[in-house]
Amino acid sequence: MSRPFCHCGCKMCRAPGGGHCHAHPSCGAPTRAAAPDPLPPLDERSVAEALRLLKAGSGSHSPSVAEVERAIPGLVKIDACFLSNPYATDEAMRRLRAIAPRALERMVSHYPSQGGAIASMLAPAVGVPSDQLVVANGACEVIQALLARAPGPLLLSLPTFSAYYEFAAGPVVPHQLDPEQDFRLDLDELEAMVDRYEPDTVVIINPNNPNGGLVPEASLVSFVERMQGRVKQIIVDESFSHFATDGTPPTLAPLVVDLPHLVVVNSLSKSHGIAGLRLGYAVMSPLRARQIRGSSLWNLNAFAEWFCSLLSDPGYLRSYEGARRRYVRETRRLFGALGDLPGVRVFPSAANFALLELDRPASEVATSLLTRHGVYVRDCSDKWGLDGDRFLRVAARSASENRRIVAALSDVMAAPARQPLAAAA
Amino acid sequence: MSRPFCHCGCKMCRAPGGGHCHAHPSCGAPTRAAAPDPLPPLDERSVAEALRLLKAGSGSHSPSVAEVERAIPGLVKIDACFLSNPYATDEAMRRLRAIAPRALERMVSHYPSQGGAIASMLAPAVGVPSDQLVVANGACEVIQALLARAPGPLLLSLPTFSAYYEFAAGPVVPHQLDPEQDFRLDLDELEAMVDRYEPDTVVIINPNNPNGGLVPEASLVSFVERMQGRVKQIIVDESFSHFATDGTPPTLAPLVVDLPHLVVVNSLSKSHGIAGLRLGYAVMSPLRARQIRGSSLWNLNAFAEWFCSLLSDPGYLRSYEGARRRYVRETRRLFGALGDLPGVRVFPSAANFALLELDRPASEVATSLLTRHGVYVRDCSDKWGLDGDRFLRVAARSASENRRIVAALSDVMAAPARQPLAAAA
Repeated sequence: MSRPFCHCGCKMCRAPGGGHCHAHPSCGAPTRAAAPDPLPPLDERSVAEALRLLKAGSGSHSPSVAEVERAIPGLVKIDACFLSNPYATDEAMRRLRAIAPRALERMVSHYPSQGGAIASMLAPAVGVPSDQLVVANGACEVIQALLARAPGPLLLSLPTFSAYYEFAAGPVVPHQLDPEQDFRLDLDELEAMVDRYEPDTVVIINPNNPNGGLVPEASLVSFVERMQGRVKQIIVDESFSHFATDGTPPTLAPLVVDLPHLVVVNSLSKSHGIAGLRLGYAVMSPLRARQIRGSSLWNLNAFAEWFCSLLSDPGYLRSYEGARRRYVRETRRLFGALGDLPGVRVFPSAANFALLELDRPASEVATSLLTRHGVYVRDCSDKWGLDGDRFLRVAARSASENRRIVAALSDVMAAPARQPLAAAA
Repeated sequence: MSRPFCHCGCKMCRAPGGGHCHAHPSCGAPTRAAAPDPLPPLDERSVAEALRLLKAGSGSHSPSVAEVERAIPGLVKIDACFLSNPYATDEAMRRLRAIAPRALERMVSHYPSQGGAIASMLAPAVGVPSDQLVVANGACEVIQALLARAPGPLLLSLPTFSAYYEFAAGPVVPHQLDPEQDFRLDLDELEAMVDRYEPDTVVIINPNNPNGGLVPEASLVSFVERMQGRVKQIIVDESFSHFATDGTPPTLAPLVVDLPHLVVVNSLSKSHGIAGLRLGYAVMSPLRARQIRGSSLWNLNAFAEWFCSLLSDPGYLRSYEGARRRYVRETRRLFGALGDLPGVRVFPSAANFALLELDRPASEVATSLLTRHGVYVRDCSDKWGLDGDRFLRVAARSASENRRIVAALSDVMAAPARQPLAAAA
């Protein structure tokens, strides 16, 4: 644990790990030659209080690692809160570093292309006609635009990604998933709720966040077909589909041509390890796509446009596919190891994270993990649809980081709970 | 003029100038060692047709240089269409290239901070409290959000930046500026239109795009004060204010605290030469800011967040200020030289571009400039509020590029017009 020495607001100084800019006047980081003074470790109470304050300013989302770093520099060693493939990041970085200086300057100085032109470039990679494709400044941008246009009820299975209910333009009809059933989504139950509440929009995240539950493709296709004429739009969010199998990731995108009420959303942040570039897309009917595109202008930055061009580069695609399969294997190994820990229940997950139910409050465990081991995880006690305070979400990282995550959680769970659940309730 | 040899879709290959990726299989650019075959020059008719097709796909905006380059590789040598300070780009690039590899990787792989956190970081640089500041994925994002919330009439002086009427949620009341009065905005006339049409929103771009006309600060402040209680919002867009003077750029942002109907919009694309990063902001009442922020999530990419941190770095600010003053001086010199050309009328401009009225159709001149000299300018014949087809907008570039622009235009205007105005009408 290093002293909070640096008051520099720059991204480098705020990001986790040892790197600092050493350039801005406010950067107080010691140069590599000089070792920092050894300091007493932070106590868990201070960290818990810092996390509480940060969380209070972050709404339903986690404070970014940059924000945690700004508040308590040097604390986060492993980010198992955000959901991203580190091997895929390696592949993206290799290409980014190879951009020639003059080309990089042109990317920074010029306006990027408009969304329609970028959709034409990306469409072959997604495997749909370009008039069905909306490329977005992150999936959240297109989710917001889709929901803003549907003022009627929104049917949403809980727990889920909070943006869906926060962006709802009308009433949200919650469909509670049952932890005793491993949060499994029952499509017959969902269909009965469609009949009862007549929603404009039904959302299915597949695999779901935060539990990773997967609806089999055939059942989902049949459900979507049955919804035709009964809802205005059914949004299938496939942001975690690349982690569901080390075979070909499933997608409903090719069905949009025959099922114009279907919208398939995807984020590249997680699968391709590029959350900082902001890039997502949605496949939808050409009519809907025209309406959504009309509400934005130059919404993609030059780095996102550059990344779209990578997706038609066979060399990159081969490397990405290797990174994806390797990560899927390491993720499954992590889930197995987590399931062996005492006091931990792991819900079945087809995504790159696991939802854990603990024998003690998740906030206590999250604070200990961060303070004692530098492992940042997601305390899910604020998640709508997760009853109680004992749920923790852990994201998979690289093989070596996963081993450190398991060892850290094993250490924390080996200590007696300070607040067992009965006392906490 | 080089042959259209390269079919690579990547950004590097599509950007103007000599740089190509030499990496993707579809990049057919010859390596530097091998000189390309000399080729006959493209004829103006083919270039005119290519521009016409590109323009048809770009709506009311110019095709990006990347799109022109994709259609006719190697054609654009000087981009005098888009409006950006190249000296400021140099300063940004120097800092971007200095980011350490590990810090760059963290920027790409992690989610950026949320808008509220970035606003807190940027607020001191803008000189307003953070609760008045909305940081946006380019100024267009916040313009769209502001107009979407105001369904009543929008009062807009013409000609102007087309996004303002394209994003209007209600009827647009046009207030035509008169070329015989140098497109000067008469605030008494505008006030009379407010009384007559009772708009929700009044927009004033200062200096205005595409003519560069400036309303003096004192008159504008008085007008904004008189509008209190009479309109829901008055948007003052200061995207070109950094070019208005080599003294301190004027801004109305500090008035927002006392005038909650005032919204001040700014783009950093032009002033700071970073259009590819997508970064703009608006200063508005805290209530309005909370509403606008609620409609986006992770809307700023890591490079935009990094750039916000630069804006509190005194070293960068000193360099930027030097780049700004130098560019303002070169811009004024360009305007003088353009005004000396035969057949060219230059409207008074306080921005970094000049609107020219020619003795022949602008499309003819734009095509000749591009084909014979590689100079890309904006044919304004599609601009609402510019009557006729003789208006051309020329952006200022570096000193040496400006000299080439003037020489090119001098050469083109020295030839007899193929279509004099009488024949074209």
